[in-house]
Amino acid sequence: MKLNELPEKITACAYQEHCPTRLVLNRIADKWTVLVMILLKEETKRFSELKREIEGISQKMLTQTLRGLERDGLISRTVYPTVPPHVEYALTPLGHTLKDLLYTIKTWSEANIEAVLKAQMAYDGLNGKS
Amino acid sequence: MKLNELPEKITACAYQEHCPTRLVLNRIADKWTVLVMILLKEETKRFSELKREIEGISQKMLTQTLRGLERDGLISRTVYPTVPPHVEYALTPLGHTLKDLLYTIKTWSEANIEAVLKAQMAYDGLNGKS
Repeated sequence: MKLNELPEKITACAYQEHCPTRLVLNRIADKWTVLVMILLKEETKRFSELKREIEGISQKMLTQTLRGLERDGLISRTVYPTVPPHVEYALTPLGHTLKDLLYTIKTWSEANIEAVLKAQMAYDGLNGKS
Repeated sequence: MKLNELPEKITACAYQEHCPTRLVLNRIADKWTVLVMILLKEETKRFSELKREIEGISQKMLTQTLRGLERDGLISRTVYPTVPPHVEYALTPLGHTLKDLLYTIKTWSEANIEAVLKAQMAYDGLNGKS
């Protein structure tokens, strides 16, 4: 789709399989997106900093996540022509409109982890997995 | 982990690879979770209703999503002993604390789809994919 082919008015509905909203939802409702975007909430970061701060993320997954977020206009990537090149990631204005929402998701997970663990143990007990 | 083995105080941090918060974040930061939970926001639903309303979700993915949400204590599953059995899904009190947040994510996706599509087209143009 070219820019001039963008429908004049998109009726966005994430429940429709072929609505592009489904793809956007897939990007932002993603644990790596949440973790990356929150780290960029206050300051720019380098690839190596993001990799170190998000324990357990693979090089490939971080690269994919950053590329997807850049393509969706949520983060920017700036290359400084030093030797070796210095690359920095930052939120774009569009990314800034999303950051607080994603932060709330992370906070909910952390605040409710005990309730979820208790539910899991009760479920596994009833289903013979304990 | 048994219920009595739950650490007295969990210091939850989604950035730690082995913190259970990472798993919870993985569940709730998921497009299918968002779409299912929002449909249950106002009323209980049957499997077939959820399947029909979420275009393109497979039987297997919906089953997995519902089972995961039930295990995490976010939805309940009630079986009525009719012939054939009638099964209904509903949000639990814990699920109710999350629904508005997930609704906001869907709303953000729908409201910003044009900005994201424009960013994607610009990115693809610069990267020779247009």
